[in-house]
Amino acid sequence: MSISHSTVSSDSLTSRIAKKSLLSKVCSVQDTLKFFQDGQSLGWSGFTPVGYPKEVPVALADYVERTGKKMKFDLFIGASVGAETEDRWAKLKMINRRWPYQTGKNIAHGINTGEIDMGDLHLCNFASNLLFGFFTKNKGGKLDIGIIEVTEILEDGGLVLAGSVGVAEEICQIADKLIIEVNTTIPSYKGLHDIVRDEKPPFRRPYLISRVDDRIGTIHIPVDSDKIVAIVESKKSDKGRALSDPDALSEKIADNILDFFEMEVKAGRMPRNLLPLQSGVGNIANAVVGGLAKGKFTNVDVWTEVLQDTMLDFFDSGKLNFASATSLSLSEKGVERFHSKFQEYSKKICLRPQQITNNAEMIRRLGVVGMNTPVEIDMYGHANSTLVGGTRMINGLGGSNDFLRNCYISIMHCPSSRPTKKDPTGITCVVPKVTHVDHTEHDLDVIVTEQGLADLRGLSPKKRALEIINNCAHPDYKPILKDYLHQATNYCLAKKAAHEPHLLQKVYKMVDNLDKNGTMKIDKW
Amino acid sequence: MSISHSTVSSDSLTSRIAKKSLLSKVCSVQDTLKFFQDGQSLGWSGFTPVGYPKEVPVALADYVERTGKKMKFDLFIGASVGAETEDRWAKLKMINRRWPYQTGKNIAHGINTGEIDMGDLHLCNFASNLLFGFFTKNKGGKLDIGIIEVTEILEDGGLVLAGSVGVAEEICQIADKLIIEVNTTIPSYKGLHDIVRDEKPPFRRPYLISRVDDRIGTIHIPVDSDKIVAIVESKKSDKGRALSDPDALSEKIADNILDFFEMEVKAGRMPRNLLPLQSGVGNIANAVVGGLAKGKFTNVDVWTEVLQDTMLDFFDSGKLNFASATSLSLSEKGVERFHSKFQEYSKKICLRPQQITNNAEMIRRLGVVGMNTPVEIDMYGHANSTLVGGTRMINGLGGSNDFLRNCYISIMHCPSSRPTKKDPTGITCVVPKVTHVDHTEHDLDVIVTEQGLADLRGLSPKKRALEIINNCAHPDYKPILKDYLHQATNYCLAKKAAHEPHLLQKVYKMVDNLDKNGTMKIDKW
Repeated sequence: MSISHSTVSSDSLTSRIAKKSLLSKVCSVQDTLKFFQDGQSLGWSGFTPVGYPKEVPVALADYVERTGKKMKFDLFIGASVGAETEDRWAKLKMINRRWPYQTGKNIAHGINTGEIDMGDLHLCNFASNLLFGFFTKNKGGKLDIGIIEVTEILEDGGLVLAGSVGVAEEICQIADKLIIEVNTTIPSYKGLHDIVRDEKPPFRRPYLISRVDDRIGTIHIPVDSDKIVAIVESKKSDKGRALSDPDALSEKIADNILDFFEMEVKAGRMPRNLLPLQSGVGNIANAVVGGLAKGKFTNVDVWTEVLQDTMLDFFDSGKLNFASATSLSLSEKGVERFHSKFQEYSKKICLRPQQITNNAEMIRRLGVVGMNTPVEIDMYGHANSTLVGGTRMINGLGGSNDFLRNCYISIMHCPSSRPTKKDPTGITCVVPKVTHVDHTEHDLDVIVTEQGLADLRGLSPKKRALEIINNCAHPDYKPILKDYLHQATNYCLAKKAAHEPHLLQKVYKMVDNLDKNGTMKIDKW
Repeated sequence: MSISHSTVSSDSLTSRIAKKSLLSKVCSVQDTLKFFQDGQSLGWSGFTPVGYPKEVPVALADYVERTGKKMKFDLFIGASVGAETEDRWAKLKMINRRWPYQTGKNIAHGINTGEIDMGDLHLCNFASNLLFGFFTKNKGGKLDIGIIEVTEILEDGGLVLAGSVGVAEEICQIADKLIIEVNTTIPSYKGLHDIVRDEKPPFRRPYLISRVDDRIGTIHIPVDSDKIVAIVESKKSDKGRALSDPDALSEKIADNILDFFEMEVKAGRMPRNLLPLQSGVGNIANAVVGGLAKGKFTNVDVWTEVLQDTMLDFFDSGKLNFASATSLSLSEKGVERFHSKFQEYSKKICLRPQQITNNAEMIRRLGVVGMNTPVEIDMYGHANSTLVGGTRMINGLGGSNDFLRNCYISIMHCPSSRPTKKDPTGITCVVPKVTHVDHTEHDLDVIVTEQGLADLRGLSPKKRALEIINNCAHPDYKPILKDYLHQATNYCLAKKAAHEPHLLQKVYKMVDNLDKNGTMKIDKW
């Protein structure tokens, strides 16, 4: 089939495609629909909804909605993408499998009712396992189609990505066919990325990154142009997340963390400009970075997964030296702000594949200080990041364990309690035993709530329990938790099995009470 | 105080000390006792009982036993050491804190009755955190005394270690005083080690190891001779562990693993000589290596933590190319065998610090295939390696998660059931939910029992559960586990919370039944 590209290519698009022979691949979005079939495995670019394909997924959803045709796909994307794509696909029952992280009401519903087969994995391992072919063993380890959003195609056919990298490089390696969306609503991001091709063992070599601003790759993804079956222009913008302004609680947590940093610097365990910081997704993380922008530490570096809006404040304060991430997870307002000072910001930012940003090798070497928010933590220092009540999936593990497992100091921050409809402190975030473990007691160094900070380094389980209950639990729950610890210790001492005391037959009693009475407050164990 | 070294130094000792000025530090074991005080923090060389100091710890134990004096220490050692040292110390109540792994009846008793304050940590992180001073924050991050077993002291004062490296290098960095035991019962192991000095961030650099036999360090630990306060001759041998001969069950597990390797090679997911293997501690691991020695794979490499006896068979078979480890964890018979062909074996072995052998950087890069034995695993793929019944400490986590978390393919192997006094299959090793999580569902790829193998790669939780129950559980427990999965799925689907179904209020019912009736077989949930 031949398409006259003159009918679908604009000047804005043509100017973004330096390899002129590729102009013959330019087509309309509708012309790409023929490549899709029920049962295919797809890989998309994108990460925490930035840099994902929008034109083709939306057109395909429109098509399925219009025709009622059954089209179900296995969807592999670095992390979450915009609701208008994956969440709408979920609503239209277009998703069979989804790895490894998602956001949206419909997709969460599909996962928790057994319609969508979701798998959850550390984001760095996800990238590798995708490349190794572990998800598509029945297809020789290949993907049928990769859809990649770019901002420019270079003379050699190399792809200059948009606002995220994620697993775009791995997808280009293993996809049989590639469809490229060239987004002309944003400038070319040429020079913003550092793309490293991941090799399979035994051919992996050291990543020679010893500073957050070291570059070891290319500014583009080198691809085999013969794989490209279609190029479309995208006029759609990312649906970036707006975060609320930091509230008093988040700011109290941030203050506790900044006080801790000061103490560590004073003790000589961190340099005066700290060590490279990782800051997770969400409001508390945003508040911590906001606190740093107003704080006393200067010449700070960031080695993280996503850059949220307050990171721009941090740059503007003059205190942030350089930031490395895999995604510009900015709100729509943040994107505008980023573009308005593009030359300035882009000199201080490097976007890398998630297998690099989240790689144990660099996180350990750089001595990253990692901060993430869990669903709940327990008194011995385990954390649940994914499953409410131990069974209901929210979004996924993300990169939390990539960082916390390998950090110089790993920090979990959360409120000490959350409200229910019946009780403003109906849920304690500090429990005897988390209902699901994503991070073990061996991985976490510091727990922070608005109540205070527990430094677990060098403490045995029973001492950790006291430190966490005393410093981090909400006052409403301290007596309940202390009573549990006391009873469990006596019970296990009698059995000479009290390294980490528990009453297994009662340990989830508070969860049961929450289900039945809308609060975790119980009268007795 | 001055000691005449002529009275305590033998020819055999003198010939091992090339830096002649250090001969003035040679003294009797009794003369070292004055350096010790109640409340000190000590670091010892040694790992899974090889290369640990024996003369000084035994003399100190004798002294405490004789005098009844209270002397309690915080003890930091790479892993376990011989029972005549740490376990005897535990019996004599000489241990206050112990990190991060131990073996022995008395020490386990002390830990589980609250007398000894044990902390458990990934062995790689233990090495780093020791260096960072996280365990001894109240002492400025220092150790009072380090006791290191060596086989030779070089002209520049550098220490040539014995049969293990562990955290000896870190101890030499942070100890205020060093006591050296020169073991003259074994030959000098000069050239067997590759010592890399660990730096604190931000001064860490890439480890340029891309093959198991790459060397990037020195053959000795460079030390400040002024720290050395005493040198004693050691005439005591390591109390190496003897393993039983592989039984039918271990061999069946090993067969299942070898079949899996063959399948992976056929599918093109592993090269014909496999990828570097890690094999844990214990009888099953020993059987797997024994199976490889008799098997079809040649030119195999090993990147592991400890080398057990069958590794010598593997070398002798001509099929093992090179082995890297942190300890020669051989039985006494194995040590004899090692010495009898020392020149030959030592060319094919490199002993490294545990922060290198267990480092995520190399394990990921090399694509290590890791194999370890847990206490129990659950149907969703979590594993418990440390706490029986969720509360009683056995030995510790060891390096299991260093490997499993970062491997190319991470394998857990165990029997499907274990006997109790009342029931030959009274304990199922496949449970609905492990009582303690050391390895999460995000870390494990393959579960193997004598029943079969479950390949979890790319599977969502409910599919993993079926795969594990069907392929790995003991037939006595399959109906019980399936019934649980069925009931839990229905219960959670009704709540629209069924990503990973559980009945939290009943989930440990089998554990309760084991306590009360000596078997995990229950009639109903």
